[in-house]
Amino acid sequence: MRFLDLIHKKRDGESLAPEEIQFIIREYNRGKVPDYQMSALLMAIYFQGLNNKETSAFTLSLAETGEMLDFSSLGKIVADKHSSGGVGDKVTLVLAPLIAAAGVPVAKISGRGLGFTGGTIDKLESIPGFSANLSIKEFTELVRDNNLAIMAQTDLITPADGKLYALRDVTGTIENISLIAASIMSKKIAAGAGAILLDVKTGRGAFMHSKEQAFQLAESMVRIGKEMGRRVVSVVTDMSQPLGFAVGNILEVKEALSVLRGEGPSDVEQLSLFLGGLMLALVGKVRNPEDGQEELSRLLKSGFALEKFKQMVTLQGGDPGYLEKEDLFPRASYLETLRAPRGGYLKEMDALRVGKVASFLGAGRSVKGETIDPTVGIVLTRKVGDSVEEGEVLAFLHGNKEEILSASLKELGNAFLIADDQVEPPEMIHGIVPPFPS
Amino acid sequence: MRFLDLIHKKRDGESLAPEEIQFIIREYNRGKVPDYQMSALLMAIYFQGLNNKETSAFTLSLAETGEMLDFSSLGKIVADKHSSGGVGDKVTLVLAPLIAAAGVPVAKISGRGLGFTGGTIDKLESIPGFSANLSIKEFTELVRDNNLAIMAQTDLITPADGKLYALRDVTGTIENISLIAASIMSKKIAAGAGAILLDVKTGRGAFMHSKEQAFQLAESMVRIGKEMGRRVVSVVTDMSQPLGFAVGNILEVKEALSVLRGEGPSDVEQLSLFLGGLMLALVGKVRNPEDGQEELSRLLKSGFALEKFKQMVTLQGGDPGYLEKEDLFPRASYLETLRAPRGGYLKEMDALRVGKVASFLGAGRSVKGETIDPTVGIVLTRKVGDSVEEGEVLAFLHGNKEEILSASLKELGNAFLIADDQVEPPEMIHGIVPPFPS
Repeated sequence: MRFLDLIHKKRDGESLAPEEIQFIIREYNRGKVPDYQMSALLMAIYFQGLNNKETSAFTLSLAETGEMLDFSSLGKIVADKHSSGGVGDKVTLVLAPLIAAAGVPVAKISGRGLGFTGGTIDKLESIPGFSANLSIKEFTELVRDNNLAIMAQTDLITPADGKLYALRDVTGTIENISLIAASIMSKKIAAGAGAILLDVKTGRGAFMHSKEQAFQLAESMVRIGKEMGRRVVSVVTDMSQPLGFAVGNILEVKEALSVLRGEGPSDVEQLSLFLGGLMLALVGKVRNPEDGQEELSRLLKSGFALEKFKQMVTLQGGDPGYLEKEDLFPRASYLETLRAPRGGYLKEMDALRVGKVASFLGAGRSVKGETIDPTVGIVLTRKVGDSVEEGEVLAFLHGNKEEILSASLKELGNAFLIADDQVEPPEMIHGIVPPFPS
Repeated sequence: MRFLDLIHKKRDGESLAPEEIQFIIREYNRGKVPDYQMSALLMAIYFQGLNNKETSAFTLSLAETGEMLDFSSLGKIVADKHSSGGVGDKVTLVLAPLIAAAGVPVAKISGRGLGFTGGTIDKLESIPGFSANLSIKEFTELVRDNNLAIMAQTDLITPADGKLYALRDVTGTIENISLIAASIMSKKIAAGAGAILLDVKTGRGAFMHSKEQAFQLAESMVRIGKEMGRRVVSVVTDMSQPLGFAVGNILEVKEALSVLRGEGPSDVEQLSLFLGGLMLALVGKVRNPEDGQEELSRLLKSGFALEKFKQMVTLQGGDPGYLEKEDLFPRASYLETLRAPRGGYLKEMDALRVGKVASFLGAGRSVKGETIDPTVGIVLTRKVGDSVEEGEVLAFLHGNKEEILSASLKELGNAFLIADDQVEPPEMIHGIVPPFPS
């Protein structure tokens, strides 16, 4: 097999056989294919696409370049949850302990955030002592013994995906549904969970700007997962405004704790219960998602989910004292307030701009490996549809660099649009793929 | 300017500004752009194309990476001729001295052949002592003093083109009309001629398989040349069967000498006179191509063109004794004959297969830098449309490796198709771009 022939084949619109795709991924991972040939192939894929069979083969080939976890010895279906990422999305911090509290083992491997704010790992690691750098052995033992572990992505799992993503990132070949689906699903398949819940965000603050693209991605991922024998459900959810009020790592941990205490914010609680209900139905723990939501609502109110979270933090080296006394968390040195320039109804709160300001303050990374400041970020006071009086606080900015605060404040102001007429809040759930039950 | 942004721009179907294209080529040539980004951009160009303005900017940017020759001090329009390459195409060996004999300076820089048979340089260098490795100073002086010089492509002229072509060759991005046109024309523009004649071959033995593609390439090159202020004419000609009878370096030099002596073969003579007539009209030496053909026909019959060829060979270090006594040329050790398996009319003589057999015998290169055997090749005895009796010789194979002769003979047999019904010979000239005079 000659790599150049495979480039020609894909370029000319033919489909690649599974063994050809396996050859492509394996040889690239072994360093036998130069980056310039791989990037030409990726661009040809960008234009010609991958059909379902090719996408599945691509996914499996990526997964097979690293270790493939197997939880079958547990005798229970293990759950995993993935979000395509959004501004203020701390749902995993709530959902994972909630599901585990319901007796369903949760095994989540998560990448470090790259973008507007930190990822789940960055948020958890803002709790002093917490470590997500588990070995695969530690990870599987925690899942087995405690029903819950969250581990940082390692090169032992799907190493080819990391290399390929880095190449796509600098060659304009990120934005292809099949490649995105294969990248996400290869990690999920390798991570070994039997039931996978995928939260695909759509809107200005999400990777998928349009609903249509979000549904395409959701469908592609569900199809791949099913072909690999996994239970999969995907939900397309709104990311036109930030989720909850807090954006920034420690700020989001505090908000997640508030949700786990049953104190909201309500959008984060509702989405967590909705997704959790689906997950319990997916693993067969309840007959339908509504029953699942009810059970999880009880677990939230009873404090069991919060206990599960504390237990996980403790077992992964974190100091549970911080969770009981949140004032212990370090705070940013400066606090600024953004006030409403006029009264009316909040019509838009642009998640993309909010995320960019949070990142500018130091809450996110623009380059892999960059350090995140866990204390900085933004706390909003309104959701779209809420009313506001002129001069009321719209947002608090937490920053450590005085010199960038006023620019941040100005830019954050551009995220808000206040209108005279009453505004309907956006739908939070756009759809479920496949429509449940399937 | 960020290279990645330019990849996105082209990928998304936008056109690139001239300064963006200049940045791309210049930075790539300086080694500032990694091959993997350039190959992704090239594949995006493959799919999205380059418009006329972009193609011209691409051409000029390539040309400007090296030395730009300037013959304006001569006070005469200097002529250049390019062929897109074909099997048995020795027209330059005839045309260049013919034009020069008519008093028009000819300055030709030519690449070494890569493909089925040697290029013009390889053919000329099969004359003992001849050197095409001229300095730019030697080249321009020969053009000035002798009206004629043929020089091998050097890295001093359009270095970026060589680098880019090597990358395209291994990334599936050769087959794009704009990139092909820009590559050819950048070298022509840099080589400094004011009048450029482009012979675009089409058919099985040519790079452009379809007439449509050949005309597209011809039109693109003419447009570029005109935008750069050059006089350009392009002719689309047939390459379904080899040109002339001889295929192979020394064999083709001998055939060119035969044409220069006025002894044919008639197809090579006709095409040389046709192209030459166009060239004389293009530079304004005659009123129309027909007058040009008449003048060149006289120069051929009078022996002036042959004298010019001998003079060029001598001035570039070649031994003119070989041209006067052709028996001095070395010969291949083995001679095989291919005989007609049946009688009838020659319906097809597949130029591609004939070229491949010639290359297999050692007349061409499959990899840059490979040594060519000047003695080997094929001499045909028929043109398409000719009649043949069963058992008559169709071709002579000249080889130096006994062990490959029988396989070559068998494969060469597959190039011929003999039919019962009389067959029309193919049209040699498919069209002129722009229709002359323009």
